[in-house]
Amino acid sequence: MGEVAGQPGSSGTDHISICEVSLRDGLQNEQQIVATADKVRLLEALCAAGLGHIELTSFVSPRWVPQLADAEQLADQAQPPSGVRLSALVPNAKGLERVGRTKLVEITVLVSASETHNRKNLNQSIDETLAMLVGVVGGARAAGLQVRGYVSMAWGCPYEGEIDPARAVDLAQQLQNCGCHQIALTDALGVASPRQTRELVRRLLDVLPAADLALHFHDTRGTALANVLAALELGIRDFDAAVASLGGCPFAPGSAGNLATEDLVYMLDEMGLDTGVDLEALLAAGHLAEQIVGRPLPGKVHRAGPFRREPR
Amino acid sequence: MGEVAGQPGSSGTDHISICEVSLRDGLQNEQQIVATADKVRLLEALCAAGLGHIELTSFVSPRWVPQLADAEQLADQAQPPSGVRLSALVPNAKGLERVGRTKLVEITVLVSASETHNRKNLNQSIDETLAMLVGVVGGARAAGLQVRGYVSMAWGCPYEGEIDPARAVDLAQQLQNCGCHQIALTDALGVASPRQTRELVRRLLDVLPAADLALHFHDTRGTALANVLAALELGIRDFDAAVASLGGCPFAPGSAGNLATEDLVYMLDEMGLDTGVDLEALLAAGHLAEQIVGRPLPGKVHRAGPFRREPR
Repeated sequence: MGEVAGQPGSSGTDHISICEVSLRDGLQNEQQIVATADKVRLLEALCAAGLGHIELTSFVSPRWVPQLADAEQLADQAQPPSGVRLSALVPNAKGLERVGRTKLVEITVLVSASETHNRKNLNQSIDETLAMLVGVVGGARAAGLQVRGYVSMAWGCPYEGEIDPARAVDLAQQLQNCGCHQIALTDALGVASPRQTRELVRRLLDVLPAADLALHFHDTRGTALANVLAALELGIRDFDAAVASLGGCPFAPGSAGNLATEDLVYMLDEMGLDTGVDLEALLAAGHLAEQIVGRPLPGKVHRAGPFRREPR
Repeated sequence: MGEVAGQPGSSGTDHISICEVSLRDGLQNEQQIVATADKVRLLEALCAAGLGHIELTSFVSPRWVPQLADAEQLADQAQPPSGVRLSALVPNAKGLERVGRTKLVEITVLVSASETHNRKNLNQSIDETLAMLVGVVGGARAAGLQVRGYVSMAWGCPYEGEIDPARAVDLAQQLQNCGCHQIALTDALGVASPRQTRELVRRLLDVLPAADLALHFHDTRGTALANVLAALELGIRDFDAAVASLGGCPFAPGSAGNLATEDLVYMLDEMGLDTGVDLEALLAAGHLAEQIVGRPLPGKVHRAGPFRREPR
């Protein structure tokens, strides 16, 4: 097992890509509806911090997720610096139709590794979702869009409990076969431990290259960064995170939300890994997020600040 | 680098020892003074959860830490089940005199790896502390007590910033030379990352066996379990933690407190490592701690609960 960052076996100057999901996964789980102008301000702050990949919104039905009902307006008003990838979640053909009328060039589709969760989330079976996605991903690709695929509840499900990693691996492969360029495995329940992460990642690496994989942890049980460490050691270089740990999971009571981007960047910085993100500017974005949602956000580095290395 | 728990290179049935520090490190950082009877109730709940090593209190001057002014009474009233080790922090000869009048048979002494922090904490230089500890540890050993040694601020200091790991290693050796049977390196500032942890642990292992070492993390920046994972992989099997993440560090604003015992046990359980601790009973102890201090405690598993593996 290889270590990273200046340790034996290291490749030295590894770059870690972060997909910032606060505007979608964060805000869809907030009680209140944030104004489009505030989302634009947060987007600008996230771009200013150096984040290069930002999940902007979801083209889900506004009846299901009113928090993201302004998807078109936000996509229209977003003016990221060149080089920043913006993506949006697209749950179905209707969503693809909507995103097609915007300037966005990357979408994310999703399927759950839990049959029960998939039914509750998408109102159809996993097989029905996969059949639908063949059309959606094919249509998106034909329209020149890049497509990222989520396999959600890959470690565990609030309804079904443990999930067989073989199911998550099979779905990852099927999403890639549909035409997804990257597969992100998500633990929205926040139950992953390094042992399960190693097992799942090893099985994934049997069928997909590390560069095509990303991991999406929630820090519900404090294990998110330990899972990142375990995955880094196996060669994974893409992680999702949300500034200040915005959001949570409606199905996981007490959920602490996504892995905080500040916590991830802090650890990677301290390990000598390059993220391209400036922690001070990211902290400012987190404080803006807190101001916008009007409640204290739980991110740890967000609350404690960075390590001041210089003597006072 | 060896993995643990059912992975290649694993020794399979590793036991991890946890030193529960909520009654000392937790309560000394709480605003209010908890009644001795409540401390006894919490101790009983911690013992019922299966914790085998509990730091009960500190024989520090009641003027400095009024929260622990009842050290003698608590030591007197504590009736742990057989096999449970109770220890108490002893900062100086006066503390040793006090502990000598109790039934406790294990103490902890401490020195800081930061000269400035040592002066602020103990009102003397590191060299003066070491000279004093020769007498205290020698006296304790002569009286039949076991002595654990803390090297505090081993990763970083709020005043001096980064700490040279060589200083922490040197102090660990000196404490062992004084007669300490185990050395615990502490990161009360909560700045450790897995890279620094690996570097420090590797250097420590050059001079001390893994069995003589323990690590004490605070989860201020979300990295505590990642550090535990890095240390596990290097053979460390002893960790400090505090139920529900009680406490914090008066020198680290926004500090999230000690690594929560529930989070540690959760991760180790999920990794197939044996702690001897029952998570459900530990969660009950955490809820009692919350009731006793009268404020919500931030431990993550404390708030989210365990992973329910069975389908609902």
